[in-house]
Amino acid sequence: MVGGGEGAYIGNIHRIASRLDGAWDLVAGAFDVDPEKGRAFALSQGLNEDRAYGDYKALIAGEASREDRVDAVAICTPNFTHYPIAKALIEAGFDVICEKPLTATLDDAVALEKLARESGRFVGVTYTYSGYPMIHEARVRIANGEIGKIRTVQVEYPLEWMATAIEAEGNAQAAWRTDPTKNGRGGSIGDIGTHAYHLAGFVTGLELESLTADIATFVEGRALDDNAHVMIRYKGGARGLLWSSQVAIGNSNGIRLRVFGDKGSFQWFQEQPNDLVFQPLGGRVQLIKRGSDELSADAQVRMRTPPGHPEGYLEAFANIYSGFAEAIRARSAGRAPGPLGQNVPLAYDGLKGVAFVEAVVDSASSESPVWLTPIAV
Amino acid sequence: MVGGGEGAYIGNIHRIASRLDGAWDLVAGAFDVDPEKGRAFALSQGLNEDRAYGDYKALIAGEASREDRVDAVAICTPNFTHYPIAKALIEAGFDVICEKPLTATLDDAVALEKLARESGRFVGVTYTYSGYPMIHEARVRIANGEIGKIRTVQVEYPLEWMATAIEAEGNAQAAWRTDPTKNGRGGSIGDIGTHAYHLAGFVTGLELESLTADIATFVEGRALDDNAHVMIRYKGGARGLLWSSQVAIGNSNGIRLRVFGDKGSFQWFQEQPNDLVFQPLGGRVQLIKRGSDELSADAQVRMRTPPGHPEGYLEAFANIYSGFAEAIRARSAGRAPGPLGQNVPLAYDGLKGVAFVEAVVDSASSESPVWLTPIAV
Amino acid sequence: MVGGGEGAYIGNIHRIASRLDGAWDLVAGAFDVDPEKGRAFALSQGLNEDRAYGDYKALIAGEASREDRVDAVAICTPNFTHYPIAKALIEAGFDVICEKPLTATLDDAVALEKLARESGRFVGVTYTYSGYPMIHEARVRIANGEIGKIRTVQVEYPLEWMATAIEAEGNAQAAWRTDPTKNGRGGSIGDIGTHAYHLAGFVTGLELESLTADIATFVEGRALDDNAHVMIRYKGGARGLLWSSQVAIGNSNGIRLRVFGDKGSFQWFQEQPNDLVFQPLGGRVQLIKRGSDELSADAQVRMRTPPGHPEGYLEAFANIYSGFAEAIRARSAGRAPGPLGQNVPLAYDGLKGVAFVEAVVDSASSESPVWLTPIAV
Amino acid sequence: MVGGGEGAYIGNIHRIASRLDGAWDLVAGAFDVDPEKGRAFALSQGLNEDRAYGDYKALIAGEASREDRVDAVAICTPNFTHYPIAKALIEAGFDVICEKPLTATLDDAVALEKLARESGRFVGVTYTYSGYPMIHEARVRIANGEIGKIRTVQVEYPLEWMATAIEAEGNAQAAWRTDPTKNGRGGSIGDIGTHAYHLAGFVTGLELESLTADIATFVEGRALDDNAHVMIRYKGGARGLLWSSQVAIGNSNGIRLRVFGDKGSFQWFQEQPNDLVFQPLGGRVQLIKRGSDELSADAQVRMRTPPGHPEGYLEAFANIYSGFAEAIRARSAGRAPGPLGQNVPLAYDGLKGVAFVEAVVDSASSESPVWLTPIAV
Repeated sequence: MVGGGEGAYIGNIHRIASRLDGAWDLVAGAFDVDPEKGRAFALSQGLNEDRAYGDYKALIAGEASREDRVDAVAICTPNFTHYPIAKALIEAGFDVICEKPLTATLDDAVALEKLARESGRFVGVTYTYSGYPMIHEARVRIANGEIGKIRTVQVEYPLEWMATAIEAEGNAQAAWRTDPTKNGRGGSIGDIGTHAYHLAGFVTGLELESLTADIATFVEGRALDDNAHVMIRYKGGARGLLWSSQVAIGNSNGIRLRVFGDKGSFQWFQEQPNDLVFQPLGGRVQLIKRGSDELSADAQVRMRTPPGHPEGYLEAFANIYSGFAEAIRARSAGRAPGPLGQNVPLAYDGLKGVAFVEAVVDSASSESPVWLTPIAV
Repeated sequence: MVGGGEGAYIGNIHRIASRLDGAWDLVAGAFDVDPEKGRAFALSQGLNEDRAYGDYKALIAGEASREDRVDAVAICTPNFTHYPIAKALIEAGFDVICEKPLTATLDDAVALEKLARESGRFVGVTYTYSGYPMIHEARVRIANGEIGKIRTVQVEYPLEWMATAIEAEGNAQAAWRTDPTKNGRGGSIGDIGTHAYHLAGFVTGLELESLTADIATFVEGRALDDNAHVMIRYKGGARGLLWSSQVAIGNSNGIRLRVFGDKGSFQWFQEQPNDLVFQPLGGRVQLIKRGSDELSADAQVRMRTPPGHPEGYLEAFANIYSGFAEAIRARSAGRAPGPLGQNVPLAYDGLKGVAFVEAVVDSASSESPVWLTPIAV
Repeated sequence: MVGGGEGAYIGNIHRIASRLDGAWDLVAGAFDVDPEKGRAFALSQGLNEDRAYGDYKALIAGEASREDRVDAVAICTPNFTHYPIAKALIEAGFDVICEKPLTATLDDAVALEKLARESGRFVGVTYTYSGYPMIHEARVRIANGEIGKIRTVQVEYPLEWMATAIEAEGNAQAAWRTDPTKNGRGGSIGDIGTHAYHLAGFVTGLELESLTADIATFVEGRALDDNAHVMIRYKGGARGLLWSSQVAIGNSNGIRLRVFGDKGSFQWFQEQPNDLVFQPLGGRVQLIKRGSDELSADAQVRMRTPPGHPEGYLEAFANIYSGFAEAIRARSAGRAPGPLGQNVPLAYDGLKGVAFVEAVVDSASSESPVWLTPIAV
Repeated sequence: MVGGGEGAYIGNIHRIASRLDGAWDLVAGAFDVDPEKGRAFALSQGLNEDRAYGDYKALIAGEASREDRVDAVAICTPNFTHYPIAKALIEAGFDVICEKPLTATLDDAVALEKLARESGRFVGVTYTYSGYPMIHEARVRIANGEIGKIRTVQVEYPLEWMATAIEAEGNAQAAWRTDPTKNGRGGSIGDIGTHAYHLAGFVTGLELESLTADIATFVEGRALDDNAHVMIRYKGGARGLLWSSQVAIGNSNGIRLRVFGDKGSFQWFQEQPNDLVFQPLGGRVQLIKRGSDELSADAQVRMRTPPGHPEGYLEAFANIYSGFAEAIRARSAGRAPGPLGQNVPLAYDGLKGVAFVEAVVDSASSESPVWLTPIAV
């Protein structure tokens, strides 16, 4: 693991997620921009001293020469460093697990996706929410035509936590997220809108055709948007609305997806992730429960307990990590991955996400909100 | 009452609403486009034979000459007839209660609003959802600054019932709603989007500055939109999203309003209208309940029962009717109306609604979705 | 109407309920124990002076001699007066609508039920909650075997409002409810437990076999129970739990019924009365919505609006009143009542309720909580 | 670990829970009643061959002589084997983590609790639901007097899964649970009622004074109760209702706890475990969210993510396991445990649970439902 040391929220989440199903062991790391701190943190995690590295270059050098070298490296550093670190890792022959967004700029994203494709290295991107079993269930059912041809997709990701200028009050998490040099051009749209965009596309299989957007910065002094409204036209005629906000007081982590077809609809809300709400045309509202026997194999492999035993965010994240393990193992073994290793978010998904953010900012920055189409890749 | 006879859904609702609080007696009517049917219906409702009129002109002629002439006339006819009927009534000196939308065209709306203003007649428009007590509670609290300066407003009105071409299968309600000559230019946006737009403005006090919209017709053969997405910029900097849909399977009557300020937020969902969800910045989610002692006078006068005794749509509609009665009585008495007669939807609100619908259709019809500003009135 | 004058909560509810569907006109009343106040109130309600009576005896005398005498008289007075007033009315040939409980004592209940039966007069009891359309829907579906043979019934009616000694602080409603001479022997169990008991029996068709109970008085100085726990054995083997409480902070009017059979279950919560939750064995949780086409005739006649237009407590109460009207009309016409006039709560239901309350208090008062069987009637 | 091998549901849960926070490594096991299967399973889990034992006696013998012997042994075998295995482990000087119930009989429970007390060995019992952070939050707030003196406690644990005779159709989980020789005398009350009883006592701090119960067996041919109703009197005057059911169709894992004091109430539902519903007297309904800053240290140490990132059953189970680790570590170090190691369920809690089950069955089996007091211990 690179980054994710002392005090880093997401680093700990990656560690729990990788460990939960026993799919990964953490054996080496360069956890901090301060080498000493990073090494100390490594030891606190029970790593051997010789694999407690000072920085990612040392990690690459150290691991490259070992027989028991690590299978993959997780990158949990700020956005703008994803590209150089991933590039070095790939060029040294390592598989990579990268926090979203893939990179801070579109150029970097294009380059990294190309590198991943041409090198044949595995580059997974942790679009966490696509790890939830009921998201896979919705995806399978939509692909099977259960709600017919899709008409509209409503997706939103509102948060409260940046409703005031906490970046000016010492909150490090907020500080880099509001700094264009570290975060990229998208504020709320880059940080969380990209999750919403990925989720909508992942579940529906729809490809974006064009979009028009309106972004705003409500907290004074903030350089990036903290609220974004996007109208979307998907290929094939479906329409969509996407809302991301870092200032929507009352929302903890409110990703909500609603998909309406001509035969039915699905709804899913991340804060009650064990239920998938299904309504057939003219029928009753129905809850499809995580854990029930009727679920698809894609959902079944992503759960551990019967209905009523809530699984949550960490289990979704573990599904991503276990899926990466299965994908990598399958490739090594020259076989097709099982369901757990399929439909995992890869570099191309990361690139699409960065292109989406760029198009939103471009559209909203134009005098009139023209319909923009993200780069074709 | 004009219109609203045998088989007319909304006519019966008007009658229940007017009767519920004992504020109105139904004593005269021209209920049907077929004079005989209309008179028969009148008798079935217990009206005297001499006030069972064949059409609205007969009603005007008959009532104008009576000493005990009706206090006001409710118009429950299809949209395109609202203007001529209202005009005739006003010119004959009657007060008017008009179903929304005020008229089918913007020209008619401008003319009718002008006529109402200059004649001094009372012209109420039944924007039902603004009759709910918790909507008034939210309005009062927002006006008092309880959630601070408003940043974003999310409002939606999704329905399922026109998800298939029921207008081609004999559904009369759907037939006139999908006929531009009877309904006006807006489909879902005119039928229900206008409710959502009114509610958002009513609660927040915000005035629309400009909008850009994307409308779609998903059911084949339909002449008007059945799904509309609108991005809104309000005067003063707030932003909004509005979604109306007649094809959103799973939604019965799903008007939902969420208002986010810099100190808190309110949420309200029409299908659970007795709860107002309040969240202060950094605080707990809280339910403010209809019936509780803490409510404002504006809410108190619009309820009949303690908390936990659900009041619903008919009571909200009755609040509108009782409010009109109080407004008319107060004017006759030359006094200011009490809280029940204040903040009732009038012709000007109706005009704004028609202008909004026109701007949405114009914006969505332009090649690129320009920001449009509805006519200033 | 007798009782229900100025300041009487339930009197106003009766008036709205009787008026809502146009089934009744209020034309005569003796509204207050103070004759002058009662007459003044009558005039304020628009009654004619000659039918604004000073007390119930004057009402009987005055109405008995009129050709246009009232069709029925509603009794909205404190519990202990129900019996003498109802008796006098029945003996004078009037039909009666009586607030629950039927009477304050079991002897009175037995006598009144006998009188009703033998006189042939109509005696309806306003078990309001049995007026909800989804309650009728559940009743019909259970009778049709949709959830199979019933195993357990969980019913509860918790309230907060008497969690402190408000009867000592001038709350008149609480004062008579805590006074055994006015209310009868049951506190919470008599005031609200009887509603829960009626509802459970009404929906399931089950007859109580025996019960054992534990009652408590938590507010100091209170003479009657304010919390009751009852274990029930129904004839045929089903079991039940019933909980009533006037001190359950956080509950507005929390009647909740859950019925579990060997093929499925139904759940209903009075504060969201438009939804009936159905779950078949091994299946999905499903919402059956008020207003949907699939409903039984019994539910259909008890609603006015499509799904998503919430109907509530007043509409349920109006269903009771309109049902009484239909039942009386049908009897006058010598025909069977339509669905609206069937399954309405009558004197016998009222008697069963009083017997239940007595058995609960007796069981809880015995040294050991013996299983008691209410009187067979 | 003893038991919990191939196909054992709870064994896998224990492994995930122990691993999730990195508090435990699984290094030795006797996983199956079939020695060969057990050893094969051990190898499949990555254990060394010399610690893949054939049975618990071999495990004790093998581990006792190692310098790196295991810190504790988890017992995941059927109820009736808990006592002999735990006894042997304790006598060999091992700490023990035991699935609930502690034992299948009261005699065994008394003996085991005594042995634990006198030996000084750590004996934890996995009352999983007491691991949820919001349960600890409720416990702390109640102890602090936030809802005042407790009046009533409503707790229930309904399940659907045994609504038919699945034990006769090859379901091994159901088979031993319905066999008195393996499960003990309590059916639903022993399997899940004991969880409900523990949770109510854990959160409120109340001690049971006496109880009276009604149990039933609804599925034909079943030897033990599958539905139990219990009325409880707690020391100090509080009352309670407890319902457990294995046949309540529609319930996945529906543990719900409601505690009403004289100043407020708390509600918690296991299927939405991240919310604690709080209502102060006369105030608003409020949601206290897992992850929020206002939480006590006892809750804070039991969570990993901010609000809105659902944590569930596995995290609650991990809290129990990590708490056991902290308790054991603290004892070794001769220091007081941190908050995570406090308030963990121990042998005495297990004994109280078994005594409760016995009293319920005894009470329900008596001719008349006498109030019984479980043995004092």
